[in-house]
This record gives sequence, structure tokens and C-alpha cells, in this order.
Amino acid sequence: MVATDIDMTLDSPDPNDPIFALHRGGKMQIAATVPLRDADDLSMSYTPGVARVCEAIAADPEVAHEYTWVSNTVAVVTDGSAVLGLGDIGPAASMPVMEGKAVLFKQFGGVDAIPIALNTQDVDEIVETIVRLAPSFGGINLEDISSPRCFEIERQLIERLDIPVFHDDQHGTAVVTLAALINAARLTDRDLSELKVVVSGAGAAGVAITKMLRSAGVVRIAVIDRTGVIHPDRTDLNSVKQWLAADTAPWAKPGSVEDALDCADVFIGVSGGTVPESAVARMARDAIVFAMANPHPEVHPDIAARHARVVATGRSDFPNQINNVLVFPGIFRGALEVRATVISEGMKLAAAHAIADLVGDDLTETYVIPSPFDARVCAAVAKAVTDTARREGVARRPY
Amino acid sequence: MVATDIDMTLDSPDPNDPIFALHRGGKMQIAATVPLRDADDLSMSYTPGVARVCEAIAADPEVAHEYTWVSNTVAVVTDGSAVLGLGDIGPAASMPVMEGKAVLFKQFGGVDAIPIALNTQDVDEIVETIVRLAPSFGGINLEDISSPRCFEIERQLIERLDIPVFHDDQHGTAVVTLAALINAARLTDRDLSELKVVVSGAGAAGVAITKMLRSAGVVRIAVIDRTGVIHPDRTDLNSVKQWLAADTAPWAKPGSVEDALDCADVFIGVSGGTVPESAVARMARDAIVFAMANPHPEVHPDIAARHARVVATGRSDFPNQINNVLVFPGIFRGALEVRATVISEGMKLAAAHAIADLVGDDLTETYVIPSPFDARVCAAVAKAVTDTARREGVARRPY
Repeated sequence: MVATDIDMTLDSPDPNDPIFALHRGGKMQIAATVPLRDADDLSMSYTPGVARVCEAIAADPEVAHEYTWVSNTVAVVTDGSAVLGLGDIGPAASMPVMEGKAVLFKQFGGVDAIPIALNTQDVDEIVETIVRLAPSFGGINLEDISSPRCFEIERQLIERLDIPVFHDDQHGTAVVTLAALINAARLTDRDLSELKVVVSGAGAAGVAITKMLRSAGVVRIAVIDRTGVIHPDRTDLNSVKQWLAADTAPWAKPGSVEDALDCADVFIGVSGGTVPESAVARMARDAIVFAMANPHPEVHPDIAARHARVVATGRSDFPNQINNVLVFPGIFRGALEVRATVISEGMKLAAAHAIADLVGDDLTETYVIPSPFDARVCAAVAKAVTDTARREGVARRPY
Repeated sequence: MVATDIDMTLDSPDPNDPIFALHRGGKMQIAATVPLRDADDLSMSYTPGVARVCEAIAADPEVAHEYTWVSNTVAVVTDGSAVLGLGDIGPAASMPVMEGKAVLFKQFGGVDAIPIALNTQDVDEIVETIVRLAPSFGGINLEDISSPRCFEIERQLIERLDIPVFHDDQHGTAVVTLAALINAARLTDRDLSELKVVVSGAGAAGVAITKMLRSAGVVRIAVIDRTGVIHPDRTDLNSVKQWLAADTAPWAKPGSVEDALDCADVFIGVSGGTVPESAVARMARDAIVFAMANPHPEVHPDIAARHARVVATGRSDFPNQINNVLVFPGIFRGALEVRATVISEGMKLAAAHAIADLVGDDLTETYVIPSPFDARVCAAVAKAVTDTARREGVARRPY
């Protein structure tokens, strides 16, 4: 069964429906890694033996990283405000996604992730709550928190915590997008600094992609929202869009999506909106179209392919699937291994290059990005992260 | 290896030490319960398929209990303020105990428990944090939070949450103590209402045991702390001890532990203090001594046995181990199964009787309580809890 075959109608759960049958009882569980067969086991794993480990940590907090599961755990935290394309469905309804994410963390990265859905959407309360939880986790993965609140939450947490904080909807998406763009540019023999890029969507992903592309050397970027190109003359911009307007000026000129795409080299869609074929047709030669909205790409990949040389989507049933699962497991795998204090811009750039490099000489129009199931990806990303963390001096376990 | 053989010296962790070797990397992990072999699996467990489960929950929150792991999870929450007998060692150093507890929850109750160590010891902050986390869990097990803060935290959480909240150091200890006392009284052919009981320790366990014994029909109780018997004339009592003084008056007379034990039928030690042999010698005929401080009982069981007919401890290397692990897995197993809104006094009483009943005709002086590894215990406790929850109308899944 591929994505297109799945019945997406809203209905009461039918226990015989394969989707609901699969989710019944949830998708994960706790498993002990120590034996508990008898009183001797109990006296080792629990009282009185465990007291010695507690005392060793009380005497030297560093010991906790070797002798608890904390160093391999990540809290996957949401407030349920921007879940997939479903919007503000609240904490309870977000849990199936958080569990799914946790399962991916384990499967692809060997990371023990705990889904945490909060029943507050207040920025300060979310920050305070996560700060108080922090001793229990080795890292914090923010998930499906709406823009622009996500930026402030992430900023405050990074400032207050000394463990990695990563908003996957921003940075996971940005890293994997850059990885695909590096290869698409290589395939079409262009340098990132030459490309004219249009980003559709000014939410978490659009903002992070814009920043990431800047870090990677892209000069000409225009970001569009529902109203058109974001530029400094607009009076309807929130603080984040004002930043985008300033950052993309003077390149980004007022206009519609059609205007923006005229002679553009790259379209990156993370909006959920639609782009008419006529607009794609106006793009430059060897155009690159990443229509990543899920499950409905901004332009159908078959239509985009009439006009673009490289087409990618977020879907598993078309070539070039741009999927965050290529990023977050390896990012945290690496960050946890060296006990990085942050996930830096340098680590994200290195991760993007590591993913792109795995394609190597097999690069074609339909293979600019590895498959989510390419077993090499997590290790390559983790190595890029650990190497960078050591070089940047943010690894607390630098050996 | 039994408890007495374990080297309890404080030292830097030696990776070859069996205790530290066992704890290396922690004692638990996350395991997926769904396959993730290929893109089809991904589209079922994660996007786009998962969106249907989210939408079904958004339309009817009850659906969450069937299709997420929440309904089988318990947060094991501490602030690190009263860890074992080690005291206020903080959240990081408490994690080995919380992990151990989580492993016991899984092993004995099939419950998925998540260790949460908070870096605040402020009552209101702890309450707020747990209330915000609540959508992620089916129940809250409070652990190793110091008295008297634990009472207020528990009270507020029970008031604000509609999922079970259980402070194991109070109620787990009280239930298992009552279970043992029921059988010790039966063995010595006395009714609970006749017994003269001395409880040593006015912290979480002592208070809860006193309340539980009252519910079970014990009339004569004196509680002692470091200063002696708690009674209304004392001017050094905090609010909890004032309550104890009022509750145990007029039976409890001013005096020392020796005075209190004179002609007493039952000694219950949850203090960590010591009781001289001379005091035990003054107890009534067929005395019952539960010296439960761990790892050092208030009176050594061999010494107690010179004067008492039934002797129990918290230790695995002596007969009659009074261990909370007989209680909390089954309590939560039952409460989660029927989605109880609370863990009521009736459920706790029923659990104590269920544990006591398992001893049956095998009752002897050295067998008043089942072994922690008695496989019948969890199911018996869970059944007592589910039956009572249904009878009391606090089961949201009453079938």
C-alpha cells in the first residue's frame, strides 16, 4: 500500500481498518534492559544496590551520563498546535504523530524518544515546563508547534538549557532540503551562489530553509506567503515575516507567485498552497521544483516534470522523497554521542552535505536524495555532527 | 548475591563493579510495537496514515485511549528530594531509582512507565508541570518527594486531574503493610480493632499507614517521631503531625518509644531510626514487629524475633519482605484497565485484602506476605482494583 491508496476520509475508527488496527494500543512500549528474575536481580537493579549509583551521581553529576538512560533519550514535545497539515488539534490528538516520531527515532537512530504532549499553548509555560523536565532527557525535539511561537520557544530553550534543542519542523526540513538542493545544483552544474530561489511558505519550515540556504551560500531568495512575495513595503507582516522581508531584500520584489517564479531556478514549497502549471512553466531552464507539501504537493510532480529538470516531493510514492527522517535520527544520534550542548548551524550544514554526498556518482534527475530506508544515512549524519561538534568545541564528550 | 553482600561504600564508579556494570547505559529502552521495514509501513504508522488516527481523536477524545500508548503509561515523577534513605540528592541522582521503578512497573504490571525527574522542588511548580504533562500519560506515580510537601502535591493533583495519582511512598507502603498486618493478626487470632499499634516515623509512609490502618478498623495507634510520641500537647508539630496528633488522641499518650511500646501489639517502623531490644521486649505477647527501614531495619530481625512472634522487614534476605512492588504494579494495572479517575481508599483496602488472601492456608510466622516474585499478586491486586472501581462508579471503562 502506498500513500495514494490510503483512505483519508474522516470517520469513526473501525477496528478492522488496517490503519486503526495498526495503531491499536499505541505504537511503542518500554522494555527493560536488565534482568529481574529474582531477589538478587532486584537488589542489584533496585534497592539496595541502586543507591550506590545514586550516590555516585550525587557526588559527580557527570556519572549520570554513563549510568542512566538519560544520555540516550530525547523528549519529543508538542503542544498540538500545528500537527501535520491538520492544524491546532490539541495534545491528545497529536499523540499518534508523536509516537510515530518516537518510533522513527528508535528505528533509524537507536534513540529512545518519549512523546510529551502538553496541555498548554502558552510560550512561557511551555518553556518553563520543558526546563523543569530537562534533567530527565538528553535532548529536546520540538514538534508540530505553530509559527511564530515555535521560534520564541526554541530561542528561550536554547538559551536556558545545556542539552540539544531542535525544532524538527524547522531544521530537519531545512537540512534535508539543502541536501537535495546541493545535489540538484551539482546535477545541473550550478553553484548554490548562482541560484535564484523561491520559497513558498513563511512558517517554521520556510523560515528555517531560508536561513539554512543563506548559511550554505544562496544569495537570491524570495519567500512567498498567501499574499505574495514578502518584502519590506508590506504592512501585514508579523515579526518573523519582517525578518524574512529584510533578509531577502532587495532581491525579493513585490509580486505574485507567478512573478516570483519568472526565471527562478528553484521552487521550494512548504506551504500547503497550490502553484499553477503556468507559473512553473515560467521558471528558468533546468528548473528545480521541490513541492514538499504533504500529502498534496503544491504542484503535482508529473505536471512539474513537464517544465522542471529535477522534481522532488515529500511523498514516498514519487522519486526524490525529501523526508526529515533522513535528518533527525542522525542529528540526535551524533549530538547525544558527544553530549553536544547545542545543535549548531555548522552541524546542520555538515549533516546536509553528508546526506548529499551519499548519492555520489549515482546522481540523476530522479535520485538527488537517498531513500529514507538507506541504512547508511544515520551513521553519516551522526559522524558529520560529532566531527563538527568536536571542531566547534561544543562536545562535552570529545573523545 | 543478596542485599547484605552488596558493597555499599561510596566511591567513583568502577565499570567492572557488577552494580555499575549493570546500570551502564541505564536499565530501560523504548521498543516499537509496529513494523517499519519500508515506505508502506512508514505511510501506515506515520504520514500520511497517522493523520486519520489524529483526526478521529480530534473528533472524539475517547478514541485516544484505544489508539495511543497513553492508556498504558504512567509517569514516575520525582523532584529528587527524598530518594530512598539518601535524602535530597536532586533530580539527576534520582534517575537510577526512577528507572528501576519503571522497570518494575513493566516487569510486574505490564505498565509502560516513564521516569521524570524535575529540577524544581516548589510545590506549585511541580503541580503545574505535572498538570501540563498529563495528556501524555494514563496515570501519575509520585515518587521520593519529601514530606510534608508530598501531601500537598498529591492533594492538588488529585483535585486537578482526572487520571489516577498515587504517591507510592505513602500508599504502596500503606497497602502492603496492611496486607501483612491482616495476616499477622489472623495468625495470632486477633481482630484489627483490638490491636495496639505503634508507628515509628511521621513522614509520607507513617502518615499513610496511619490513615490506612484507620480505614481498616484499627482503633489504637500511636505515632512516634524522633522526639517521641506525637500528641496534641506538643508545640513542635507541623501541620501533618498536628493532624496525626489529633487523629491518634486520646489513645496516644506522651512518652518515649519505650513507653509507647509497653504492652503494644504491633510495631511498624518506617523511620530509619533504631529501636532498642529493651523496648521490643516490653511489647505484648504475640507481638508483631515490622521493621521496614531499608537497608537498616529499626531493630535487627533476629533480635526482634527473640521477643516478637511475627517479624517482617523491607529486606529480601529475611522472611516476610514487605515490599511495595507487591502493590503499585497491580494498582496501576487495574486502574488503567478500567480507566479509573482516582485510586480510592476502597481500592487500596481491597488491594491489601487481595494480597493478604493469597497467603491463604500457608500462613505461618515466616509467611504473612507473598513473595515479590509471586506471579499471582499483580493479577489479584488488579482485579481487586477494577472490581472496586466499578462498584464505586469511578471506572470510565466499566465493562
